[in-house]
Amino acid sequence: MSDRSAHAAPGRLTHWEKRTEVPLFVASLFFLAGYAVHVLAPRNTEPWRDLALALVGATWLLFLADYAVRLRLSGLGLRFVRAHWLDTVVLLLPLLRPLRLVRVYTAVQRRRDRPRLDLYARAMTYAGLAAVLLGFSAALAVYHQEHGAPGATIRTFGDAAWWVCATLTTVGYGDVSPVTPGGRTVAALLMVCGLALLGAVTGSFSSWLLQVFTREDEKRPPERG
Amino acid sequence: MSDRSAHAAPGRLTHWEKRTEVPLFVASLFFLAGYAVHVLAPRNTEPWRDLALALVGATWLLFLADYAVRLRLSGLGLRFVRAHWLDTVVLLLPLLRPLRLVRVYTAVQRRRDRPRLDLYARAMTYAGLAAVLLGFSAALAVYHQEHGAPGATIRTFGDAAWWVCATLTTVGYGDVSPVTPGGRTVAALLMVCGLALLGAVTGSFSSWLLQVFTREDEKRPPERG
Amino acid sequence: MSDRSAHAAPGRLTHWEKRTEVPLFVASLFFLAGYAVHVLAPRNTEPWRDLALALVGATWLLFLADYAVRLRLSGLGLRFVRAHWLDTVVLLLPLLRPLRLVRVYTAVQRRRDRPRLDLYARAMTYAGLAAVLLGFSAALAVYHQEHGAPGATIRTFGDAAWWVCATLTTVGYGDVSPVTPGGRTVAALLMVCGLALLGAVTGSFSSWLLQVFTREDEKRPPERG
Amino acid sequence: MSDRSAHAAPGRLTHWEKRTEVPLFVASLFFLAGYAVHVLAPRNTEPWRDLALALVGATWLLFLADYAVRLRLSGLGLRFVRAHWLDTVVLLLPLLRPLRLVRVYTAVQRRRDRPRLDLYARAMTYAGLAAVLLGFSAALAVYHQEHGAPGATIRTFGDAAWWVCATLTTVGYGDVSPVTPGGRTVAALLMVCGLALLGAVTGSFSSWLLQVFTREDEKRPPERG
Repeated sequence: MSDRSAHAAPGRLTHWEKRTEVPLFVASLFFLAGYAVHVLAPRNTEPWRDLALALVGATWLLFLADYAVRLRLSGLGLRFVRAHWLDTVVLLLPLLRPLRLVRVYTAVQRRRDRPRLDLYARAMTYAGLAAVLLGFSAALAVYHQEHGAPGATIRTFGDAAWWVCATLTTVGYGDVSPVTPGGRTVAALLMVCGLALLGAVTGSFSSWLLQVFTREDEKRPPERG
Repeated sequence: MSDRSAHAAPGRLTHWEKRTEVPLFVASLFFLAGYAVHVLAPRNTEPWRDLALALVGATWLLFLADYAVRLRLSGLGLRFVRAHWLDTVVLLLPLLRPLRLVRVYTAVQRRRDRPRLDLYARAMTYAGLAAVLLGFSAALAVYHQEHGAPGATIRTFGDAAWWVCATLTTVGYGDVSPVTPGGRTVAALLMVCGLALLGAVTGSFSSWLLQVFTREDEKRPPERG
Repeated sequence: MSDRSAHAAPGRLTHWEKRTEVPLFVASLFFLAGYAVHVLAPRNTEPWRDLALALVGATWLLFLADYAVRLRLSGLGLRFVRAHWLDTVVLLLPLLRPLRLVRVYTAVQRRRDRPRLDLYARAMTYAGLAAVLLGFSAALAVYHQEHGAPGATIRTFGDAAWWVCATLTTVGYGDVSPVTPGGRTVAALLMVCGLALLGAVTGSFSSWLLQVFTREDEKRPPERG
Repeated sequence: MSDRSAHAAPGRLTHWEKRTEVPLFVASLFFLAGYAVHVLAPRNTEPWRDLALALVGATWLLFLADYAVRLRLSGLGLRFVRAHWLDTVVLLLPLLRPLRLVRVYTAVQRRRDRPRLDLYARAMTYAGLAAVLLGFSAALAVYHQEHGAPGATIRTFGDAAWWVCATLTTVGYGDVSPVTPGGRTVAALLMVCGLALLGAVTGSFSSWLLQVFTREDEKRPPERG
């Protein structure tokens, strides 16, 4: 949605966005890795956990700098915040960054001069990858919120991963589920984003399957004639 | 569905409906706010709770008056009740009013002379907003029915909100769920309406994603040539 | 699917099917009513329960007779059993008869010379009605299987209805769920049929919403010009 | 997806694949049967369980041989592993073989000179059959992992089948659910594959229903004229 406004904006903004797409995505992977180490490392490995926290902070400052530069270049002033509300949300909740994967994916494809994937396969790949990254982030965040809470059922990272699987696919057994307000907020965000992504995977798969069967029909006559 | 019949009806009815769309929507927000205060305010704040209840009654009388005027103007007599059965249901269950949001949304858009959102974005926005309002209403109603019942698992408004998230997305953990007949009736209504709305969000998102990827393909050749 | 073969069959079969569509649907409602009375009536009302059971048997014999006549008229012999496998399944599990509602719906519409509903509205109406009838049948059957079983959580018909709501919408809280093999078999049938029907409701609603928004766009220019 | 690359490959590979499609599918049914006997046979029937295990091993060697021949014939060397990653995954997790059913289905249809099923009916049939086979495999694997674990709720094969029904349809009651890491891994695989397959069934059914209603509209005028 912010795609069109970006194209209407001055050329320098577009240039900046094209240049920073891939580096920022790599930075967001470092952010995720830092957060993972901070959350999952045992209590007594203090130097590593602090280092990881520093990495998280540093990458977040990078995101903030990028946001500031883009706000400047756009020449929109504070209207930028509203026009690019999705970017603003992603700045405040950096664990949602995987959702911006669609741009990176396009950028990477543009550089490789290879025939690109089929339309449905691309939609499935994008939605699938975004769902995996989002699920991993959510598992970390929920584990972080829950594992020490009294009465929690999510006690290990394995439980959190299992909970994410059951939630993203909307199966929802309820054998493990968040009990703290923080964990439930993360869960609600995961449900909303995940539902849309999984719906896109399912919808694309369904369309793709119908396409395969349709093509087959079209190939038929020449094969026989 | 009642849209076409409204257009076929005499001009005065159409005029009335256009005029009252936005005021009635504002009234329905007051209805919701009054109900929220009545349900959520602590027991000992009696004057406020009674005031809120009065607000609920007053706005409901407004809805009744609007229904009566439209029944009159349509010149259909009692057939109006059947032709506009959705409006009749909404009159009796005013918490379902958010579903009429689609008209208000159109009316507001008509007045602003701005380029409107993309088709899928609009469907997603409408269904998403309607789902949020409906979910809030359902959380209030279920909390109202359940919080004092013996053996209830929904004891705070936070529990009710968490239950609505898990229900609307069809995850359904079952860690909290209604136990009274009243609460279960509200839940069944929420499931049916919510399922359709969420399906619309998912379906539109899926179509929108495929559209984004298709457009990209079309933009390709000029970019290179 | 059996629709096309019926058209290719001799005219007498088609004639028979057209004539018996509505009477057989009425008979299937009697079947359902009889089964409901038999299952829900209290233990000590013996004459009524036996009468209801007799009604169930009588209507089932009617279905059997219809099946035999159609097998005869088709001139296919035993191949009829395979060509019309859906009818064969419905004969053996008469509680699935609501799924044949689509034919009755068409037949009723044909007789009334009124403008018919919009395509999506019709699909929603059919799938919604079939889901309600199927859900009612499933609630009866599960209540029948479960209410006396040791360790059962479905103890009243209200529980069974609540369980059907949670199952058809795939929410699945798990606060009540079948524990006997018979109840679980009914549940599995309900899940498979219900999922497809509810998917049809959701899909049609989503398409209908997009259509409403598209039409609006098309109406736009003349309104302003 | 591997379909196109297979067509671009040398003719001998295509020839090999066409020839081996049906035999390999039969072999995968033997694999499944062997695994079923090994898992479900009582402890004290040792000779039979060992024979079944030998059958599993023998058919797996067959799959390995087929993979090796195809890798050779393709002339791609190790790039084959990446280009045919789906086949590689299926080699390592042979219980996923039912997903390859789509090819067999096409091959069988090609040999019979009968009018083929309608597009949507074919997609539903394929996705439905694949879901049933996948569900059966998953029930076996989960029963294998869980039935001896301490604190397990899946204790009989009936429990496992019931759990598969609730999982594939995303109802997820949670009355029975896997507790071991192995069982949960199987469950996650089932959820992801099953969700896509069931989504395809639902989507095709919805499209098929709309098609039925559309055709009816088109048939209308001549019937009356």
